[in-house]
Amino acid sequence: MQEIKRTKVVDALRRTDFGAEVNVRGWVRTHRSSKAVDFIALNDGSTIKNIQIVVDPAKFDGDMLRQITTGSCISATGELVESQGAGQTVEIQCHELKIYGTCGSDYPMQKKGQSFEYMRQHAHLRLRTNTFGAVMRIRHNMAIAIHKYFHDHGFFYFHSPLITASDCEGAGQMFQVTTKNLYDLKKDADGKIIYDDDFFGKQASLTVSGQLEGELGATALGAIYTFGPTFRAENSNTPRHLAEFWMIEPEVSFIDLNGLMDLEEDFIKYCVQWALDNCQDDLEFLNKMIDKTLIERLKSVVDESFVRLPYTEGIKILEEAVANGHKFEFPVSWGTDLASEHERYLVEEYFRKPVIMTDYPKEIKAFYMKINDDGKTVQGTDVLFPQIGEIIGGSVREEDYDKLMAEISERNIPMKDMWWYLDTRKYGSCPHGGFGLGFERLILFVTGMQNIRDVIPFPRTPKTAEF
Amino acid sequence: MQEIKRTKVVDALRRTDFGAEVNVRGWVRTHRSSKAVDFIALNDGSTIKNIQIVVDPAKFDGDMLRQITTGSCISATGELVESQGAGQTVEIQCHELKIYGTCGSDYPMQKKGQSFEYMRQHAHLRLRTNTFGAVMRIRHNMAIAIHKYFHDHGFFYFHSPLITASDCEGAGQMFQVTTKNLYDLKKDADGKIIYDDDFFGKQASLTVSGQLEGELGATALGAIYTFGPTFRAENSNTPRHLAEFWMIEPEVSFIDLNGLMDLEEDFIKYCVQWALDNCQDDLEFLNKMIDKTLIERLKSVVDESFVRLPYTEGIKILEEAVANGHKFEFPVSWGTDLASEHERYLVEEYFRKPVIMTDYPKEIKAFYMKINDDGKTVQGTDVLFPQIGEIIGGSVREEDYDKLMAEISERNIPMKDMWWYLDTRKYGSCPHGGFGLGFERLILFVTGMQNIRDVIPFPRTPKTAEF
Repeated sequence: MQEIKRTKVVDALRRTDFGAEVNVRGWVRTHRSSKAVDFIALNDGSTIKNIQIVVDPAKFDGDMLRQITTGSCISATGELVESQGAGQTVEIQCHELKIYGTCGSDYPMQKKGQSFEYMRQHAHLRLRTNTFGAVMRIRHNMAIAIHKYFHDHGFFYFHSPLITASDCEGAGQMFQVTTKNLYDLKKDADGKIIYDDDFFGKQASLTVSGQLEGELGATALGAIYTFGPTFRAENSNTPRHLAEFWMIEPEVSFIDLNGLMDLEEDFIKYCVQWALDNCQDDLEFLNKMIDKTLIERLKSVVDESFVRLPYTEGIKILEEAVANGHKFEFPVSWGTDLASEHERYLVEEYFRKPVIMTDYPKEIKAFYMKINDDGKTVQGTDVLFPQIGEIIGGSVREEDYDKLMAEISERNIPMKDMWWYLDTRKYGSCPHGGFGLGFERLILFVTGMQNIRDVIPFPRTPKTAEF
Repeated sequence: MQEIKRTKVVDALRRTDFGAEVNVRGWVRTHRSSKAVDFIALNDGSTIKNIQIVVDPAKFDGDMLRQITTGSCISATGELVESQGAGQTVEIQCHELKIYGTCGSDYPMQKKGQSFEYMRQHAHLRLRTNTFGAVMRIRHNMAIAIHKYFHDHGFFYFHSPLITASDCEGAGQMFQVTTKNLYDLKKDADGKIIYDDDFFGKQASLTVSGQLEGELGATALGAIYTFGPTFRAENSNTPRHLAEFWMIEPEVSFIDLNGLMDLEEDFIKYCVQWALDNCQDDLEFLNKMIDKTLIERLKSVVDESFVRLPYTEGIKILEEAVANGHKFEFPVSWGTDLASEHERYLVEEYFRKPVIMTDYPKEIKAFYMKINDDGKTVQGTDVLFPQIGEIIGGSVREEDYDKLMAEISERNIPMKDMWWYLDTRKYGSCPHGGFGLGFERLILFVTGMQNIRDVIPFPRTPKTAEF
C-alpha cells in the first residue's frame, strides 16, 4: 500500500477540506480511553497545538492501544473532520494507527508542571514540553527576524572568528583553547609555558566579542552584522549570565549618533513586531502560563517612541528622585555607572517606556568610543528595556587615529596584537558605529521567561556542560 | 547646511532620476587626474561596481585633491548624470568633496593583482578588494538562502552547544577548553589532572558536530537545523581544511532515505539558484577573474537531476573503469572508502553530474546510521559535486534502541556521557535523518575559489589565529 504523505499538525489544523484522508505523526501528549471512544492528543513540534485523534477502540487491537501512552511516537491516518470539541477546529477520525516508539512510565516528562530546575536536568527532553517548544519556536523566529532585517537593509552577515589570539577588548574573562598535552608542558628559562607547539603557535582563547573584527568588515563592505556564539568565563551563577551565548553585533560605516539610535530602535521594534505577527499561538500560551503582562509589554515597546536621554540628564532625574525621597541601594552621581535599579527606575517608573541613554562619561566606557567635543563624554548608546535593563550596548567608534591612540595609551591597553585594528584608522579611516545585542536577553524579553538557562537549548554555566 | 542623505553605490547605480543631487561615501579605488577633469572611482562595499565621480579640478583645492588617493575614504556630493563612459550607466558631476580619512602610499592593498598568500597576511584589508568583497557578499547571500530555505520549509533554527563535555562522535581531534591555571595543575593520587576546579567541573572541548544535539531537537520540534561554528584540531595544512569552520546540520523526524535525498538535492539547488539570482555582478566578476567555467557549472547543478547511486553499484562502475584501463592512485573494491579521485571520476567523467551515493558498508560509516535489512550496509547519503567532491554527508539514523546499542558496543564507543542521546531511542523513538554541509565547501563551490582560507574572513589553521 502506498503510504499517504504526512501532514504536519500545524498544517492539518488549518485545513478545511473535511472528508479528506490525512496522516499525522508525532508524540502523544495524552491518551484518554473509554469504552466507546479513545482520544489521543498528538503534537509534532510544528505548533504548540495538538491535534485530536478520535479512535474507535472496537476497531483496534486493545494491547496496541494500551501501548499508546504519553510520550510515545505514533502515526495516525484517518478522515479529517470538523471538531465538536471546544478550542479546536478539526480532528481526525482514525482508521489506521502505527507505533514508532513506545514510552515507559519512567518517561521524565510524564508529569505536567515540573519545576524549571527539574526541566534543566532533563534539557534533552524538556524540548518536548509546551513551554520549551514555544520558547524554541520563538527563538527561531527571532533569529529569522534578525537575518531578514539586516538582509533587507543591505547589511552583510559576517563571520568573525571564535578562536582568537588577542584579548584586548577586556570585556570579560576568557576560556583558553589548547591542544597542548597538559601532562607535558614545556617551559622556557623564565618558567613561562612555551606555546610554540600549541595548535596556533601561541596562546589562544574563545572570543568575548566580534566587534573589532566587525569593524574591519564594516570599513570594507559598508555594513555588516555578526550573529554567533560568544563566551565569558565569569563565575556568575545568575539568571542573567551564560558562559556561552549568542550575540548580534551590527557595524555600519558612515553612521552618526542619531543614525545609530534610529537603527537600534527600528531594529528592536522590528524583532518584537515579528514575534507578535508570527508567534501568536506561542505568545498566547506564554502570556497565559508564564507572564500575564507579556503581550501587553511587547505591544507597548512597538508602539512607544523610545526616550533619548543623555547620561547627564539621566543623572539629574535620578538625583532629583533621591532628593524627593526615592531610596536606591547604590548611590548615584555624575561619573558613576548606573546600577540596574537606576535603569529600571528611569524606564519603568519615570518614563514608562524604553530609554536610549547616550553620552556617558568616557571613564566608564570602552576605549574605542568616539569622544565628544566636551572631552569628557563619549558617544555610547545603551538601550534600556523594562524588566531586562540594558538590552543593547552600542557606540559611535572613535575614527581618529591620534585620539584613539591617546585613549589606548592612557588606559595602558596592551595593543601589541592589535596592529590590524589600528590599520582601519590609518588607511582610509571612516566614521562608523555599531551595537551589540545579547540574543538570549532578547529571547527573555520576548518570551517572558525569567531564567536565561531556559531560553537556550543546552545552557553552559559554571559546573554545567551537560548534553 | 543640512547634510544630504547618503545613497549607497549599489542604489545610486540603479537610479535614473538624472539631475538629482546625490551623496555617496566610500573608498577610492582609483583617482585619475588631468588638467581638465579628475575621475574618481568610488566603492562602498555595497556592490562590486564603482561609481564614477567627475571632478572639475578648477573648482577644488589642489592640495585637497592630491590627498584623494587609492584607499582614502571620502564623501562626494553632486548631480547624478547619465554616464558617457562604457560599462556604467550613471556618474556624479561633483560639486562637493570631503575627505574622511587619507591613505598613505604604504597602503597594503595599493597594488592590484597581489597573490592570495599576500592577501591572507593582510586579511584585515583584503576585504576591501574586488575579489574578497565578491566572496563575502556571496557568503552572506548563501547564509541568507540557507535560513530562508529552512524557515520556509518549517525547520527551526536550533543552537547546539559549542562547548561540550562529550566527545563521542569521534569525528575528529578536539580543542580543549579550560580556565585552569596551567602553572598549578592539581593531580590525584594516580597522577591524573583534577578537573573539579575547571570552569565546567570536568574536561571540556569544542564541538566537532552538533548532530547528536540536533537529533534531540528534531525529535521534539519535528525538524531543526543548526548553523554554527564547528572545530577540528587536526594538523591539516591543506586548501580544504580549517580548524574553525561553519556547518549546517538539518535533522528531520519522520523522514526516510528517499525523502532525505530529495531534501538534500532540493536544498542545495535552492542555494545555488539563489546565488545565480541574487549575486549576478559578483559571480560575473569571479567568472571572469577566477574561474571561467563557474557560472556554467552552477547552472548545470541546478538543471541536472542528481544521480542516485548505491555504493555497491558505484564500486562496480569503478572496477569496470579499472578493468578498461583507467588508472587510479588508490585501489578500489567493495568495502573500501572512496578516495577523492574515485568520487570525481564518477561525477566528472562517468555521469557528468552530481551524484548522491547511498547504502555504504557499515564499517566505513558512523555508528548512528540506520542499518539496512542486509545487515551489511547503512542508509548513508553523500552528495558528490564536481570539483569539490563530498559536499554533503548525511544519513537516516538508527532509531531502534537495541540495534543502536549493539553497534555502539561492537565499536567500543564510550557511551558513559551519552545517556541523553540514547534516551531519544528509549522514549517515543522516531524515524529520523539529517545531513551536514560544510558552509565553506559550499562557498568554494559557488565562488570558484580554490583555497578554503579565502572564503572565510579570518581563517584559523595550524599556527595561524591572526586578527
